[in-house]
Amino acid sequence: MNISRCAILGPGLLGGSIALAWRARQPTSHVALWARREAALAEAERTGLADLVSADLRAVVQDAQLIVLCVPIGAMPALAQQIEPLIRADAIITDVGSVKGSVVPELSAIFKQRGHFVGSHPMAGSERKGLAAARADLFENAVCLVTPDSSTDSEAAAAVAGFWESLGGRVRTLAPLLHDEIVAAVSHLPHLVAAALVQVAVATEAQALDFSGPGFRDTTRVASGPPEMWAEILAENRVALAAPLHAMIEKLRNVLKLLETADSPALERFLTEAKTRRDELKKHTK
Amino acid sequence: MNISRCAILGPGLLGGSIALAWRARQPTSHVALWARREAALAEAERTGLADLVSADLRAVVQDAQLIVLCVPIGAMPALAQQIEPLIRADAIITDVGSVKGSVVPELSAIFKQRGHFVGSHPMAGSERKGLAAARADLFENAVCLVTPDSSTDSEAAAAVAGFWESLGGRVRTLAPLLHDEIVAAVSHLPHLVAAALVQVAVATEAQALDFSGPGFRDTTRVASGPPEMWAEILAENRVALAAPLHAMIEKLRNVLKLLETADSPALERFLTEAKTRRDELKKHTK
Repeated sequence: MNISRCAILGPGLLGGSIALAWRARQPTSHVALWARREAALAEAERTGLADLVSADLRAVVQDAQLIVLCVPIGAMPALAQQIEPLIRADAIITDVGSVKGSVVPELSAIFKQRGHFVGSHPMAGSERKGLAAARADLFENAVCLVTPDSSTDSEAAAAVAGFWESLGGRVRTLAPLLHDEIVAAVSHLPHLVAAALVQVAVATEAQALDFSGPGFRDTTRVASGPPEMWAEILAENRVALAAPLHAMIEKLRNVLKLLETADSPALERFLTEAKTRRDELKKHTK
Repeated sequence: MNISRCAILGPGLLGGSIALAWRARQPTSHVALWARREAALAEAERTGLADLVSADLRAVVQDAQLIVLCVPIGAMPALAQQIEPLIRADAIITDVGSVKGSVVPELSAIFKQRGHFVGSHPMAGSERKGLAAARADLFENAVCLVTPDSSTDSEAAAAVAGFWESLGGRVRTLAPLLHDEIVAAVSHLPHLVAAALVQVAVATEAQALDFSGPGFRDTTRVASGPPEMWAEILAENRVALAAPLHAMIEKLRNVLKLLETADSPALERFLTEAKTRRDELKKHTK
């Protein structure tokens, strides 16, 4: 499907960045943006990032070939229910949520009669939030996960993959439950570890952060992300998150033992193993 | 003391960057660089970052007003013993080591008769190592810790502080043992946590890093640092590191409980507390 009309529901960092990126790369296409709050509507209109900015769901979604849900995970099912009677029968609906195991079957069921749902999760973001932080290049070279399950229409999945690629993303496909396990390890665990590092540092010495360098800054950057959004993500993915969190605690207990016995060779092996894998990531992304 | 002759012992990332920074900011001063290995000598001569590059310790240190030890912590005492008979009686000796509790008294004792030792620790570095990674701007806006103890000559301490400031650093003074506690929390713990995060991710799924985004990249950047150097630092600071490592494990166990009980409000408080403190750091450094 050649998508020329796109609707974005929710004008936050991701919704705003999708609008900017889409308009930059598909200047002849039509973008409609839905927002609920007055202030958000006014800000979206001021920045001129869509052809239509409206609080009227019908006006925004009725002609859209692709609809992107950019609201918090908890708000998605109700919003999906609302738009289902309003959309084109062949509309493709996707989302940007960070958790997929429960969302994909729930939204797929809602769009069983009208439309086709395909889960998405762009691994792009910022510790900043909101439309003010939106950027047209947010998805350039970003990993964009597409998460079909056995009920997903394969043409719709291909169209969603093509959509992210058209914004500059590198598409990877993952089944919803495997998606949740992997992002628990590469995104959710690092987030709560970063938050814990900040807390441990200030508990060690109230002014500790004054003495920190670029390593601490990078390691803890994500801890500045919006707490209400992240608390929802972590709670939503708590089942998949338990395993890597247990594994993390176990790793740190092992390191503590290596330190207590001053086993430098084992410490060096531990660090070398991590470096070897981390260096592969650098190769992929540079 | 107006320092116009400086000797740098060890041509790695820090030694090389000090030479480059010093020559850029004090073009009329004299820099001598000591290296032991043939290859390092040749590389230092090729890059022309010092007025004198030599394996002859006497030639490098004999006229220096300031001598900076840029070798691994474990190599410092022996090197200090070697140079002590060769230096000016009023020479100031400092270092760039990441651990101070044992190093400061040991080196201060070596230079009790000739010279004045003042401990330093610039919080600057890179996951890269060696002269090839050296940069003239490495210390610009970097926190540079100076760690006098009760035996330290105060004029020498002021001169060392002035030296780091002249390279662009922001000087902070810390007693050696407090230094070790604070860097354990803001540098050494984040390093081993980053390494553990990489290991947990690849244990979750061999290809997990292919699905990671910028958050994982930043949180784990330091895990690409040189393992042999970091194993030495972690082992050297193992006493001070035990407390924040225990605290980290305890924090993660608490988070696990919050997840098991799906206590989103408590999770959000946990994240908010971390964000509040982390945001203060952004203010300081931008």
